[in-house]
Amino acid sequence: MTPEQPYSGVFPIAPTPFHRDETIDEDGQRRALDFLIDAGVDGICILANYSEQFSLTDAERDRLQAICLEQVDGRVPVIVTTSHYSARIAAERSRAAQDAGAAMVMLMPPYHGATLRVELDGLRRFFTTVAEASDIPIMIQDAPMSGTSMPADFLAQLAIEIPNVQYLKVESHQAASKLERVIDLAGEDCPSPFDGEEGITLIPDLEAGATGTMPSAMIPDVIGEIVHGWLDGDEERARTIWEAWLPMIHYENRQCGLRATKVLMAEGGIIASETTRAPFSPLPATIREGLLNLTRRRDPLVLRWAGER
Amino acid sequence: MTPEQPYSGVFPIAPTPFHRDETIDEDGQRRALDFLIDAGVDGICILANYSEQFSLTDAERDRLQAICLEQVDGRVPVIVTTSHYSARIAAERSRAAQDAGAAMVMLMPPYHGATLRVELDGLRRFFTTVAEASDIPIMIQDAPMSGTSMPADFLAQLAIEIPNVQYLKVESHQAASKLERVIDLAGEDCPSPFDGEEGITLIPDLEAGATGTMPSAMIPDVIGEIVHGWLDGDEERARTIWEAWLPMIHYENRQCGLRATKVLMAEGGIIASETTRAPFSPLPATIREGLLNLTRRRDPLVLRWAGER
Repeated sequence: MTPEQPYSGVFPIAPTPFHRDETIDEDGQRRALDFLIDAGVDGICILANYSEQFSLTDAERDRLQAICLEQVDGRVPVIVTTSHYSARIAAERSRAAQDAGAAMVMLMPPYHGATLRVELDGLRRFFTTVAEASDIPIMIQDAPMSGTSMPADFLAQLAIEIPNVQYLKVESHQAASKLERVIDLAGEDCPSPFDGEEGITLIPDLEAGATGTMPSAMIPDVIGEIVHGWLDGDEERARTIWEAWLPMIHYENRQCGLRATKVLMAEGGIIASETTRAPFSPLPATIREGLLNLTRRRDPLVLRWAGER
Repeated sequence: MTPEQPYSGVFPIAPTPFHRDETIDEDGQRRALDFLIDAGVDGICILANYSEQFSLTDAERDRLQAICLEQVDGRVPVIVTTSHYSARIAAERSRAAQDAGAAMVMLMPPYHGATLRVELDGLRRFFTTVAEASDIPIMIQDAPMSGTSMPADFLAQLAIEIPNVQYLKVESHQAASKLERVIDLAGEDCPSPFDGEEGITLIPDLEAGATGTMPSAMIPDVIGEIVHGWLDGDEERARTIWEAWLPMIHYENRQCGLRATKVLMAEGGIIASETTRAPFSPLPATIREGLLNLTRRRDPLVLRWAGER
């Protein structure tokens, strides 16, 4: 049963599994989605940075979008990331995502490399162009990767002025302060603000008023328990669980990045290989072992799910 | 007649012309290439940053590569830019460019946004992967857009260690010093070092030992005269011409960027529209007028070519 809007809770980013030869592991992709749904997530985001969107061809994006939406089959809402430097192409991608069955699209502001950045009036036009091409909700992703500073009042303005812009994911520096200000300014035009960045600032962001989170797919069961506990009013329990898992989330955030989910899903038998595409390199052996030690001590579903099916 | 290697002289970057609705102007693309060849260029680079490669879909890249190589039809060598964050995709693009008839491929080091950068050993593996996928020469582009610092001794090592890496285009900060050091270290493994960045440092770079330049497509006739004058030993004349045109090149470099070529080609009737894809915006009216004033006073071929055919 698809939840109603506004969407809240936990919407993890599905990884893009690769075989050892870097071709896409479609069976692993489908299993990763089933794992997330069995973990009780409220929705799933695909083709995001933690899905290595920057290492895919357009044809691979199209294929992944099709098989992910087919596999999820309406069981939970799917957010498709449609970021592109070109407003025209971002709009085309967003329309195609809607037509394929996406519940929402997520975009960063346009950027390219170290030097191409867009000023605020250009960003407003960019998101307006995207919004005019589709009817589903848009989540604007405020992420350091974009190298673009979007002040809280600007983000709130976008939510107020562009009807489709209903979600803001804030994962920039000192996210809680920014979330608090965005929520204050945007009010009901941003009915469910999200945090991100693996949940590394989840409790401060929930305190600031976030009602959704977009973590990695590493511990969706745990993150869901924290967010739903918080939203149901048991803040103390949510905080206790988060603090117990923080060392592992912290290790992911600072030592592993998107490779953590892949290592754990491969260890747990969900995907065949932890391969990322070069120039990403495998996790160094000591870091990989450190991650596994932190994880085994906590025994999350990712290590058990495939064996328990 | 295609010149023999090592390629030297002027290899401008062809713009990607768009109609006012941002669709690709294929007729304009063909005319822009004919203009460059009539201007006496030694070769042409396509799908580079000044071709707005970051605003194209993969399908558009493929189509542009096909029509450009068809239109040039072996009259001059064509360099195809095949940069991508993924080594696998950069290699696939490079092989496809070779199969389509490219004389060379050009790549920046891999990067994405403000945060994804690769260390030197990863860069070496990246270029090795690309080199193993193709047989034609590779030009490594050392450009600020990549946000990646590649020291002179590292660039020279790549040229020495990877046989296909035969060309280096240096357009990073204080390019002349870096070119001089690269040339000293790489010797015959980099038989024709290139400068870039619109020719804004052309004379210092020629003094440092550059034998090729990759400017915009704005004044290929003039840049060619400078480079060939210099290479033929008439350094004084080359310097005099460059200094006479420097105010215009400087205005392009600092005020206009890739929009300058499009404005002048549209004014000259070579392409139908000076449109760039959003989030690029049109040149502000005063800057556009400033560019035209600097250009009309000098009367380069770009303004005359279409009328004189």
